[in-house]
Amino acid sequence: MKTVSILGSTGSIGCNTLKVIEFLGDYRVVGLAAGSNVKKLAEQVERFHPEIVAVKSDACAKSLLSELEGKKLLNLQPKILIGEEGLVEVATCEKAETVVSATVGAAGFVPTLRAIEAGKRIALANKETLVMAGELMMKAAERSGAEILPVDSEHNALHQCLRGEKKSEVKRLILTASGGPFRTKTKEEIEKATVEEALNHPNWKMGEKITIDSATLMNKGLEVIEAHWLFGFDSERISVLIHPQSIVHSMIELVDGSIIAQLGVTDMRHAIQYALTFPERRPCCLEPLDFGRFSQLTFEEPDVERFPCLRLAYDALKIGGTMPTVMNAANEVAVQAFLNRKIRLTDIPKIIEMVMRVHKPERLQSLETVKSADSWAREKANSVLAEKAFHLA
Amino acid sequence: MKTVSILGSTGSIGCNTLKVIEFLGDYRVVGLAAGSNVKKLAEQVERFHPEIVAVKSDACAKSLLSELEGKKLLNLQPKILIGEEGLVEVATCEKAETVVSATVGAAGFVPTLRAIEAGKRIALANKETLVMAGELMMKAAERSGAEILPVDSEHNALHQCLRGEKKSEVKRLILTASGGPFRTKTKEEIEKATVEEALNHPNWKMGEKITIDSATLMNKGLEVIEAHWLFGFDSERISVLIHPQSIVHSMIELVDGSIIAQLGVTDMRHAIQYALTFPERRPCCLEPLDFGRFSQLTFEEPDVERFPCLRLAYDALKIGGTMPTVMNAANEVAVQAFLNRKIRLTDIPKIIEMVMRVHKPERLQSLETVKSADSWAREKANSVLAEKAFHLA
Repeated sequence: MKTVSILGSTGSIGCNTLKVIEFLGDYRVVGLAAGSNVKKLAEQVERFHPEIVAVKSDACAKSLLSELEGKKLLNLQPKILIGEEGLVEVATCEKAETVVSATVGAAGFVPTLRAIEAGKRIALANKETLVMAGELMMKAAERSGAEILPVDSEHNALHQCLRGEKKSEVKRLILTASGGPFRTKTKEEIEKATVEEALNHPNWKMGEKITIDSATLMNKGLEVIEAHWLFGFDSERISVLIHPQSIVHSMIELVDGSIIAQLGVTDMRHAIQYALTFPERRPCCLEPLDFGRFSQLTFEEPDVERFPCLRLAYDALKIGGTMPTVMNAANEVAVQAFLNRKIRLTDIPKIIEMVMRVHKPERLQSLETVKSADSWAREKANSVLAEKAFHLA
Repeated sequence: MKTVSILGSTGSIGCNTLKVIEFLGDYRVVGLAAGSNVKKLAEQVERFHPEIVAVKSDACAKSLLSELEGKKLLNLQPKILIGEEGLVEVATCEKAETVVSATVGAAGFVPTLRAIEAGKRIALANKETLVMAGELMMKAAERSGAEILPVDSEHNALHQCLRGEKKSEVKRLILTASGGPFRTKTKEEIEKATVEEALNHPNWKMGEKITIDSATLMNKGLEVIEAHWLFGFDSERISVLIHPQSIVHSMIELVDGSIIAQLGVTDMRHAIQYALTFPERRPCCLEPLDFGRFSQLTFEEPDVERFPCLRLAYDALKIGGTMPTVMNAANEVAVQAFLNRKIRLTDIPKIIEMVMRVHKPERLQSLETVKSADSWAREKANSVLAEKAFHLA
């Protein structure tokens, strides 16, 4: 039996990971960390019998206990832990060979770093961790020998395309992007976008944060930075191509002009399974791609005029140091404000840009640098929000 | 300097190979074999200074000498050889590390086999050789250690897709096919097709034989058999998918449902260079694929009702032994008859089927078995043609 811990087990990636584990049959869940969705976590405990679980707070821990009591499952007696400490314990649990890092946003950063330091195989779905502190994480992985397998469908595709190739013979990575729900909308229409419209992603069912990021193309920007750290390519060698059907998950261009692409169904379980079983490929629970079920594949260049978040991410990557950390934090604050109906979708890049403009980037030397840049940016973004200063941007 | 001999140097693949060699700069041409296009061969001798050349006949050799004399190039003094013996000598020339096998049809078979036996790297563009006697050739390659690199764009694509994969984890090979000029035509329209219409391939500029084979889909049938021998997959694990834009050159489906595809411009020089420089990839003289220059990629299942040649090829592969040899020979005779305006395009599969129906397949044990099956099939096809017996089919 191979052993797995999941950070973010009640989210979209977490639930799909558990489906994959059930299907594979020879994987055992040793740790689960969730936020406050205690009801779902209790169901997962019932089904998978983890040895330790982590939740957000004392209150959540109490609800979990009473849920388990209600299910007459107190005999399972998982160790219950709380907060970041709990996440870290699940992430570094000695029995877990693989850690699926699927918490949303910055919360996953420290636990994922600890799992890397502990030399675990990391199935990485939390792209923010690499955006915040890619350099720290990749250096830690180099030291500990931890292998990082991307679960993001694009990076998973790139990982597959790169299998038989030498990095020096790869001219560029080409990340495909669906373009989100506003791909064909005018600037004016995007300005008026509602939360419901922004959450209505054409191809993928995902969490709220990433769905908004997809609507602004910030998701693709984060992925450019993620690709930089995962595969070691400069920003000039990472392109983005809009591909509305999301069938081609990403591509690489070789120096001889050849393009290698990975295609598949739009279901995260494929990438999750790939990350768990690599270097082995095993039959999957999903129906294979049916070439009769889509009429065409199309491609177009991204428009950074209508989607300035993509440009901001390239800028942050080029500047380097703490700038991507700051951009990521400002984005998280702005997206939450949009979800709370406090700002317009088009205010998100304005807020990020204002925060980035006043940030003095530092070298990313330690966890403390990351944390302080992250807090600074959140504070700054909140004050920009409070002052509504972004309307001037 | 790496050294190359080219069988079929004045044909489409041959000329493109010489362009690639000129571009690469560190490859030297030691041998050239052509048919009767002596004028072009003389130009190639002038430019590339091969040590030996082979032509079809004594008469061709004389014309070549006078061409060279006219160009005041007799001082180059290449050794001039004739017929199959000449082809074999160019193919086995000690100084050539790589042999590009690009003669059309059955004529390339013995020289290619000899080059394999001599342990050369083979850049194989002549698919008929593998169709005729794949088993013999692959066994010879196993014995001599000769490496066979496919130049056919589809197999070259498959070779690229398979680079990072284990054969046991590949579910099937998916050969793409443009569908040829009659893809959208009715059975009745195809019956009335003229030679000019059949030669008007939508995407690729190629020789006449292969262009007609593309119009009947026999080319794809031959490629299925070629893929079987090159990569060791059974007919059940080789599919054909119509893809009119010819941008995706072929794909593989892995056991986990993932599809890996190779895309590129429709220019043979890419595959030729890949075969020459493998395992290295080097910058190419071609413009890279421009995703802005095609509006869409589409895929559809092939229709064996309108294109029975594809079904005949699968049948021949399943029966095995000498049946593919016979199918290939009957096809060559029938295609020539069509080009000579003696039969209709739709008579080609009828003639092949009549010949296959009366053939008693034998195990493919030696060159003699191949040769006698080949001759028998040509004779039979010619007599079917003479009797116009195919109208009854």
